[in-house]
Amino acid sequence: MTTELPGLKKLIRHLQKVPYLASKNIYRVANYFLMAKDNEIEELCSVILQAKKNIKSCEQCFNWTENSNLCEICNSNRRDKSIICVVQTWHDLLAIEKTNSYNGLYHILGGALSPLEGIGPEDLNIEQLLKRLRESENLNTVKEIIFATNPTPEGEATASFVCSRIEESKLEVKISKLASGVPIGSVLEFMDRVTIHKAMSERRPF
Amino acid sequence: MTTELPGLKKLIRHLQKVPYLASKNIYRVANYFLMAKDNEIEELCSVILQAKKNIKSCEQCFNWTENSNLCEICNSNRRDKSIICVVQTWHDLLAIEKTNSYNGLYHILGGALSPLEGIGPEDLNIEQLLKRLRESENLNTVKEIIFATNPTPEGEATASFVCSRIEESKLEVKISKLASGVPIGSVLEFMDRVTIHKAMSERRPF
Repeated sequence: MTTELPGLKKLIRHLQKVPYLASKNIYRVANYFLMAKDNEIEELCSVILQAKKNIKSCEQCFNWTENSNLCEICNSNRRDKSIICVVQTWHDLLAIEKTNSYNGLYHILGGALSPLEGIGPEDLNIEQLLKRLRESENLNTVKEIIFATNPTPEGEATASFVCSRIEESKLEVKISKLASGVPIGSVLEFMDRVTIHKAMSERRPF
Repeated sequence: MTTELPGLKKLIRHLQKVPYLASKNIYRVANYFLMAKDNEIEELCSVILQAKKNIKSCEQCFNWTENSNLCEICNSNRRDKSIICVVQTWHDLLAIEKTNSYNGLYHILGGALSPLEGIGPEDLNIEQLLKRLRESENLNTVKEIIFATNPTPEGEATASFVCSRIEESKLEVKISKLASGVPIGSVLEFMDRVTIHKAMSERRPF
């Protein structure tokens, strides 16, 4: 027995749908909701619903945007519009933005190809990227595409697939991808074989 | 820069108040809320608000209860009403219930004494426990109190404090606490010194 209360069971069942909430913590979060002041939780709910109403996908890159069809990055005059960095998710975009090392535009695919999970090319924003490149070709704007998909089998396969689609479309654009190798601050001893092999075969002049 | 969208910032700020949601995952949960279908999120919010409206604390033991002043454990005829197990939180109650090794009643303190966090005796359900014991004395019901607070400094101090209050009140009741020692399935080599010391000093005939 955990609990027989129907309302509490329903709350737990709904919280289970929220991803990244460790199953061990669902009861704690349910307890927090029940203990908290009514107005705090009402406010949380209204903020969530308000956000869903006002925040949309950017028409160009699929980043989140509020009160505008284009996101703050696509809209900005200070960004280099000749480079597009292709990422899987919004979190990946945030991770790159945090480094302050990139000043171009983005394109969020919305995931990676995964036949096991039933995610095919039509589920990702691939055609939208090709359309974006075709349109930019007339204006001669986009010069380079940087693939920043995750270095996992799914991420690599997705990058290869999108790359081949770009080549098929005969679009004149330089294609690059993030360097892979030993991460800074890591210990060589604990690194996996594939990473060390990659770092070795892609070694650079010192 | 992470994001400059006011609604999204507000959503993140509110999600940060929810405990046990790892800070790394807040952006992922926000993304999930924005990606999900409107009706799913509306239902989640309505389930949370409904639960807050219908679920109350048990008047006797502070477990959660729905449509009744007493919880299902206090109300049950199959529970042994002569033992009360004192726990810090609802999750602790659930953890004990899952083992099916205890058939008595509970008393949830609502936390542990913690001067650093400003949690004093008046913030816990201690007086309510004493009142409960005093009332039961007339009926001669409660024979034993088991302390099942966490074996942390705060949990131990809370148990000692409550125990001394029971003794001051001259209530005739047996007081016991959970055994401490080496957990089953663990490796002695990786156990901390205090646990091994406890297990050694409280060793039992084989």
